Amino acid sequence: MKLATLKDRTRDGMLVVVSRDLTRCVSARPFAPTLQAALDDWEHVAPRLADLAHDLELGAVPAQRFHEHDALSPLPRAYQWADGSAYVNHVALVRKARGADLPDSFRTDPLMYQGGSDCFLAPRGPIVAVSEDHGIDLEAEIAVVTGDVPMGASREEAAAAIRLVMLVNDVSLRALMPDELAKGFGFFQSKPSSAFSPVAVTPDELGPAWDGGKVHLPMLVSVNGRPFGKANAGIDMTFDFPALIAHAARTRPLSAGTIIGSGTVSNRGEDGGPGRPIAEGGVGYSCLVELRTVETLQGGAARTPFLAFGDTVRIEMKDAGGHSIFGAIEQTVERAGG
Amino acid sequence: MKLATLKDRTRDGMLVVVSRDLTRCVSARPFAPTLQAALDDWEHVAPRLADLAHDLELGAVPAQRFHEHDALSPLPRAYQWADGSAYVNHVALVRKARGADLPDSFRTDPLMYQGGSDCFLAPRGPIVAVSEDHGIDLEAEIAVVTGDVPMGASREEAAAAIRLVMLVNDVSLRALMPDELAKGFGFFQSKPSSAFSPVAVTPDELGPAWDGGKVHLPMLVSVNGRPFGKANAGIDMTFDFPALIAHAARTRPLSAGTIIGSGTVSNRGEDGGPGRPIAEGGVGYSCLVELRTVETLQGGAARTPFLAFGDTVRIEMKDAGGHSIFGAIEQTVERAGG
Repeated sequence: MKLATLKDRTRDGMLVVVSRDLTRCVSARPFAPTLQAALDDWEHVAPRLADLAHDLELGAVPAQRFHEHDALSPLPRAYQWADGSAYVNHVALVRKARGADLPDSFRTDPLMYQGGSDCFLAPRGPIVAVSEDHGIDLEAEIAVVTGDVPMGASREEAAAAIRLVMLVNDVSLRALMPDELAKGFGFFQSKPSSAFSPVAVTPDELGPAWDGGKVHLPMLVSVNGRPFGKANAGIDMTFDFPALIAHAARTRPLSAGTIIGSGTVSNRGEDGGPGRPIAEGGVGYSCLVELRTVETLQGGAARTPFLAFGDTVRIEMKDAGGHSIFGAIEQTVERAGG
Repeated sequence: MKLATLKDRTRDGMLVVVSRDLTRCVSARPFAPTLQAALDDWEHVAPRLADLAHDLELGAVPAQRFHEHDALSPLPRAYQWADGSAYVNHVALVRKARGADLPDSFRTDPLMYQGGSDCFLAPRGPIVAVSEDHGIDLEAEIAVVTGDVPMGASREEAAAAIRLVMLVNDVSLRALMPDELAKGFGFFQSKPSSAFSPVAVTPDELGPAWDGGKVHLPMLVSVNGRPFGKANAGIDMTFDFPALIAHAARTRPLSAGTIIGSGTVSNRGEDGGPGRPIAEGGVGYSCLVELRTVETLQGGAARTPFLAFGDTVRIEMKDAGGHSIFGAIEQTVERAGG
């Protein structure tokens, strides 16, 4: 089934079940007012939502038109957002840009940071930023939402806890990262609010594109209307979602509604090195800093700027038939207070 | 007023107003079922809770006995837990233990990490840990709960957003920190679930001990029943709460219910160096690693072990009259699955 959260006057919005083709929806309020409430009591609520989804497909319930613009992030605020960096190619590239090697341990021990989860952006809302000087970048990622995960969960327990899949734009402020990471406590100011896709889907909606741990489909990214990336999220993902969840749960339980991110989707080139831009026949990138790194490695300097006020990014994923699965994240960068 | 969250069958517990002497309480359900609900609509709810607190003091409402053991953390789960490290003396000591100097910027730019907030420990519940080899430590801190804070908030806006004050035990796994921090993404596995005091109080309950930014009272810490620390939280706090909140809000808004921590309370000694243990006439420490560092600096090796299964820690703060303000965090370390 497919779920979305519509804007209303509350902080958590209203849960709706969305039709497979994303054109219609029906309120889930009789069963759960919000997505968090559904996740808190998933065993009881999910079968009822599945029945509702079935009736919606059959046209057996009164439905309303679904507009992606009316959606908040599926969890407008969450109790946990932990983002891995599972595409080690991305990590290697970003490090190469600053002259740092990739430690061997990065291929066996996942990188993960604790993100802010109190206030996610709407998928069609603006990216509000204080200054263009902060190096505003997108990061197109996959995320899963989990149920309760016990401390020390096995890979199998982790896999069984995956409830929903969605897309993320993990907005990043590149210029703030060097100083912040040098302090040793990880990202904070350099990782402002993220946005998630209008729709979150149960893994079965992905069909054969979901293998239990990865999504084997291209991540379609465009910047200002021009194709920028189509890296396959199933390729070069060094740590799959069960591995990321088990990593997060090693020393503590995870509560229902925890969001675990994949990190920026990134594919290596045919020669094992950095992938090529779409304009040169490659699959492109899921963030600007990768292209800038490639430009730097090839020409000594980055030519592509970070995002400016007024720039628009779009992130989407389509099934084998070309139909949007999650709806699109489409955001324009705006000046804070502007 | 003083607020607590009693255990019930829900994940968020039941909000109660607690008497000043912590002996009685009354349900706040007519006004807000949970503390998060109260914070979401504070302008409307707080005056009603204040009236209820007034009636409770007068004995004008039917009250029940308040037991600290029945309390969850005031927010059993929260949308944001961001912990500063405002007592730079603590940072200097911990760094000295591993031979690292304190960069000058650490005195002007706050250290802050994003903590996990999906599942806080109960103040009288166990600290469940996987292994004693992880270097289990306590960290006694002050925290504030904020209302909504706009992106780029001024110091004045930050100060005005402080709603509640409470104590924290920010459980830390010291042995996991070096590898984790070396990876550059900050704490994750090394910072498992934290516990908060049974009671959260509005700043006015602190009287003259609250100056708008700091709490000027000793942080009473004992380990296995023996006094371990009584550092004054108003001394050597390099960044006060308005400064920490403004730091957190520099590039993003903070939503109501955000918890901002002070970091481990730590006082310098009379000579400006590390403070002395209580047994030697000093104010002691608010975490074991500080004592271990002092032991290492003085004798070449740490003698005091980290916490073992069965060890108990207690964290409390008393007013000038010797009365407990927040109730006590008192926790015993237990083996996961044991």
